[in-house]
Amino acid sequence: MKSNRIIPILILTVVGSITFAQTGSQPAIIEDFKPSTLNQPGKEYPMVNSQGYARFRIEAPDAQNVHVSLGLGGRGGTKLTKTSDGFWEGTTEGPMDEGFHYYHLTVDGGTFNDPGTLNFYGSVRWESGIEIPAHDQDFYALKDVPHGHVQQILFPSPSTKTSRRAFVYTPPGYEKGQSKRYPVLYLQHGWGEDETAWTNQGRANLIMDNLIAEGKTEPFLIVMTYGMTNEIKFGGLKDFDINPFQTVLLDELIPYIDTNFRTLSDQPHRAMAGLSMGGMETRTITLANPDVFSRVALFSGGSISLEDLEKNPDFKEKVELLFISYGSRELENPRRGPWGDPKENTEAVKESGMNTHFYVSPDTAHEFQSWRRSLYQLAPMLFKE
Amino acid sequence: MKSNRIIPILILTVVGSITFAQTGSQPAIIEDFKPSTLNQPGKEYPMVNSQGYARFRIEAPDAQNVHVSLGLGGRGGTKLTKTSDGFWEGTTEGPMDEGFHYYHLTVDGGTFNDPGTLNFYGSVRWESGIEIPAHDQDFYALKDVPHGHVQQILFPSPSTKTSRRAFVYTPPGYEKGQSKRYPVLYLQHGWGEDETAWTNQGRANLIMDNLIAEGKTEPFLIVMTYGMTNEIKFGGLKDFDINPFQTVLLDELIPYIDTNFRTLSDQPHRAMAGLSMGGMETRTITLANPDVFSRVALFSGGSISLEDLEKNPDFKEKVELLFISYGSRELENPRRGPWGDPKENTEAVKESGMNTHFYVSPDTAHEFQSWRRSLYQLAPMLFKE
Repeated sequence: MKSNRIIPILILTVVGSITFAQTGSQPAIIEDFKPSTLNQPGKEYPMVNSQGYARFRIEAPDAQNVHVSLGLGGRGGTKLTKTSDGFWEGTTEGPMDEGFHYYHLTVDGGTFNDPGTLNFYGSVRWESGIEIPAHDQDFYALKDVPHGHVQQILFPSPSTKTSRRAFVYTPPGYEKGQSKRYPVLYLQHGWGEDETAWTNQGRANLIMDNLIAEGKTEPFLIVMTYGMTNEIKFGGLKDFDINPFQTVLLDELIPYIDTNFRTLSDQPHRAMAGLSMGGMETRTITLANPDVFSRVALFSGGSISLEDLEKNPDFKEKVELLFISYGSRELENPRRGPWGDPKENTEAVKESGMNTHFYVSPDTAHEFQSWRRSLYQLAPMLFKE
Repeated sequence: MKSNRIIPILILTVVGSITFAQTGSQPAIIEDFKPSTLNQPGKEYPMVNSQGYARFRIEAPDAQNVHVSLGLGGRGGTKLTKTSDGFWEGTTEGPMDEGFHYYHLTVDGGTFNDPGTLNFYGSVRWESGIEIPAHDQDFYALKDVPHGHVQQILFPSPSTKTSRRAFVYTPPGYEKGQSKRYPVLYLQHGWGEDETAWTNQGRANLIMDNLIAEGKTEPFLIVMTYGMTNEIKFGGLKDFDINPFQTVLLDELIPYIDTNFRTLSDQPHRAMAGLSMGGMETRTITLANPDVFSRVALFSGGSISLEDLEKNPDFKEKVELLFISYGSRELENPRRGPWGDPKENTEAVKESGMNTHFYVSPDTAHEFQSWRRSLYQLAPMLFKE
C-alpha cells in the first residue's frame, strides 16, 4: 500500500498546494482508484484513490435518481449521474477523512445499501461501509502475528428475560493457558450501533493482536455487549435511564465473565471505556461504581469535571486512570454538551491530582478512526504493572 | 408461537381443503402477519403469517418497478405494487416452505437488499433473509439453557499466504474445563456461502446447545471455515480442484485446532460434514483421507456408491458412520448428478456392511431447513461411545 502512495503524495505536494492556495477548490483527482477494502468479495465498487476520494457505481438502469449519503461535510452527500450502460456513477467532491465511514444510497426515494460493500450496524440499521486508507493503518492491519480469538457468548440475563449476546476478545495464547489470569476491559459502542461495532468497524481485535505482538501492551480481555442505547432519541439524553444497562453489565455480564473466563476479577484489573453514547454510559456507571472499575476512558463521549469529582469523592480516590479523547474536528466545532469543555475539564482534573490523559486524533471527526486510535493509545497504559 | 398457530390451522382444515380440492389455487390468506424473526431491530417488514405467506413493503416512492426474488417455485418471485403512500407492497402467491430463505429485491433494474432484514452470505453476496416459522422450530430456538461459545479464530495459512478465518463452536462448560478433551466436527457451507453460514443461517450453535441440554448428544466442537468454493462456476464441478482447500483444511486448520483447543486429535474423534458443494468437498476429501476422519456426512451433496468403495477400500474399513441426507423436494425432482441416485447408493452401501444412515427432511428443498434438520439428526449419532 505504501509504495502506491508515494507518487501521488509527491504530485500532491506540487499540484495540490497550488490548487488549494489559488482557488480554494479541491485537488485534481488522481486516477489510481482501487476497490475499498470493505467491499464484498469480488466487488469492484465503491473505490477509493490515494487522495481519499471515493467513487461509486450502482446498477439501476430504470431509476430516476440515485444519491449517496457520503460526501464532504455539509454538502449533502454525492449525487450520481446515469451512464449509458445503466449504471449510476459519481465521485465525492473532495478527499474524505481517513478511516471508516458509514453511508447508504437513496434510490428513487428509498433507502438501500450499496450492493458492493459489507454491512456495518450503525444509525440503528445495517449500513454500507467504506474504508479510506489511513497513513497510520498499519496499527489495525491484519498481519502475520499470533491472533487472539473473538468469542460470541450468550449470557443469561434475568433482568431482561433473555440470553444476551456479547463478544469477548481473548489474547493470543489464552486458550492454551491453564492458570494465567487476565485483566478485563468492558468496551461500549455508540448510539445506533451494537456489540458488533468494536470488532467490525473498530478492528479492536487486530489493534490488540498488533500491540501484543510488539510487546507494547499487557494482554487483557475485551468484553463488548449491546448498550441498550438505541431507543434513546438523539438529544433526549436527559431522559436516559442508565439502570437497565447498568444492571445487565454489573449484575449479569461481569459475573458471567468472571465465572467463565480466567479473569483477574477485582477492581484494580477491571476497566470500562466507551465511544460517544457508550462514553456517556461509561461516565455515569463508573462515577457511581468506582469500586468496580479502576480505569475509565471516554472516547468522544464527554468528560469528567471537578464538580463531578466533588460529588463522587470515591471516584478520584479509587480510579487510577482517566482517559479522555476526541477527534480533532470535534474540537474545531465543539459541542460542549452538559459537561463543559472536555480539554479544560481534563486539565483541571489532572491539576487536582488525578492520573489523566487527554488524546486528540488528528484530522478525524466523530467517526471510528478517532476511536481506533483512541483504543490504540489507551491499551498500553491500561494495566501497566 | 404455538398458541398463535392453533386457530389458523383449524381454519385451514376446513377452508383450505375445499380451496385446494376444488380449484387447485392457494388457501385464503389469514391476516395474522408478524415481522419475520430475521428482521433488523424495530423493522416491521417483511412479515410472515401462520400459513407461511410472506408479505413485503418497501419504500421507494419514485421507483418504476420493485420485485422480490422470493416466491413460489417457478413463478418468478413476487411482484410488488405501489401504494398511494410511496411504498411497494406484495404477498407471495402461496405459502412458502418452512425455514430460512434467501432473497433480494430488484428496484428499477438494480439488485438491492430489503432494508428490513438482516443479511446472510449466499449466492456470493450478502442477501436478505426471511424465516418462515417451522412446526419443529423448537430444536433451533434460543432457549434458557447453557450456551456454548462461537469463537472467531484467525489461523495462519502459509499455502494461501494469509491468516484465514474460521468459527469454532465450543460446547457449554468448555471454557471452565482444564483437562476434558472433545471430538471435532468439521462442517462446511455450500456454494456462494462462507464460514458464517452454519451459525447465522443454520443456527448450528443453538442446535447443539439444545441437544446437549437435553442430554441427546455428546458435546463436541464444530469448526467452520470458508471452503474456497465461490470461484467455481455452477455446473463446472468437473474442473474443481480440491487441493487448495484440502491443503488448508488438513495441513493448516486441523493442526491449529488440535494445538489451540482441547481436542481428541485422532481419527476416531474427527468427523467431516458439508452441505451441497460442501458435501461434495466432504465426499472428495474423506474418500481420499479415511485416516483423518471416521465420520462422514453429506447434506444435499451427493452420495457414496459401491464403485467409490471399491476404488477406496480403506474408506469402508476405517469410516464408522456415513450419513446422507436430502430435502424431500430434492428427491421429488432428483438431480442425480455424477454419483447416481443417493438413496439407492446408500442402501447398496449399507447392504455391503457399512454403518450408513439416510435421512429425508420433510417438505423442504435445497435450503437451510433441510440442513438444520440434518445436523440435528446427525449430531446424536456422531460420537456415541
